[in-house]
Amino acid sequence: MSTLHGVNLSPFVRKVRMALAEKGIAYDNEQVVPFGQTAEFKKLSPLGKIPVWQDGNLVLPDSSVIIDYLERIEPSPPLYPSDPAQRGRALWYEEYGDTAVTSTLTTVFFQRFVRKNIFQQEADEEIVKNSLDNQVPPVFDYLEGEIGDNEYLVGGRFSVGDIGVTTSVVNFRLAGESIDADRWPKLAAYVERVFSRPAIKGVVEGDLS
Amino acid sequence: MSTLHGVNLSPFVRKVRMALAEKGIAYDNEQVVPFGQTAEFKKLSPLGKIPVWQDGNLVLPDSSVIIDYLERIEPSPPLYPSDPAQRGRALWYEEYGDTAVTSTLTTVFFQRFVRKNIFQQEADEEIVKNSLDNQVPPVFDYLEGEIGDNEYLVGGRFSVGDIGVTTSVVNFRLAGESIDADRWPKLAAYVERVFSRPAIKGVVEGDLS
Repeated sequence: MSTLHGVNLSPFVRKVRMALAEKGIAYDNEQVVPFGQTAEFKKLSPLGKIPVWQDGNLVLPDSSVIIDYLERIEPSPPLYPSDPAQRGRALWYEEYGDTAVTSTLTTVFFQRFVRKNIFQQEADEEIVKNSLDNQVPPVFDYLEGEIGDNEYLVGGRFSVGDIGVTTSVVNFRLAGESIDADRWPKLAAYVERVFSRPAIKGVVEGDLS
Repeated sequence: MSTLHGVNLSPFVRKVRMALAEKGIAYDNEQVVPFGQTAEFKKLSPLGKIPVWQDGNLVLPDSSVIIDYLERIEPSPPLYPSDPAQRGRALWYEEYGDTAVTSTLTTVFFQRFVRKNIFQQEADEEIVKNSLDNQVPPVFDYLEGEIGDNEYLVGGRFSVGDIGVTTSVVNFRLAGESIDADRWPKLAAYVERVFSRPAIKGVVEGDLS
């Protein structure tokens, strides 16, 4: 059986777990943290990042690469649109999730969750407030506009783009925050819709419990 | 005709130009720089990054996403292996190029080329020396081991992985540096091999001239 290396609370590891759950692929999970790794692990992951997917001799050290690979070995249900333009947009949303959304929501998660639970320190609430006031709103504004009245981001079907932009919302919740449904009603409803999918629900509820 | 937004000297823009050249796709080119952009451009590129590909209503603001799209609309010659594991490895090398290789080689490029030609400042040679002594060697060591005695990184065929890891070598050369062929003979020969491909040669020689 293949092995997924990386802690469940990593938004990038969760992306892969969401894809695996949607596709019903069984796997082993090694809870590697993203710092202080062994030399052995660094051979698998030259950038020292998680997740890493190991399938016999094949080693894939990047969440986007892993999900692309999973689509090839288990095409059903598809996580990528077949239309080239829609596929391009889905990949773009995945990239936006990997960068803007995750880096933004991780600021609050790091202060409120990682510092408290891993480093036994208090959160710096000034950093949290600055992030919530200034960094988070432009990201949520963009996503509110992109989702509009659509069920999912691209072509009315769940895709890797939806995985990419929602994974870090779990970390935002673990930090005691949620998307203000008065200010971003379409985004808030959309995230609920993604998180109510049976496969995704199992992943999200497990991480929040 | 479609438009590629972004300056030629950006390693990410060059990735797309290399793919376009290999596939023989004609396009317009808008020389947008990666800072001080107009509000109009930021609508196209929410992260403010280059390149952006614009094809009618379709807007794709990321080099990896653009090349994936180009493969769909013009599959020949293929830039992605058809075997899932080889494809995964090619995507991984592209990612390694986008991150470790480019961030490392950009340090020297920024000091020696950007500061001098754009900001009319002197290079900080202490930063350059530290990068050449400490940051660059581990990246070249990794690539030397990965290329080994193979013609290209994956499956003996040119792929997006080769584009990803070689694009920033052009910037390294513009900074007056080259890969030491005594220390990294396989890597140096491999980069020459990539740069001698007719389509790639046109792009590289144009940028170096």
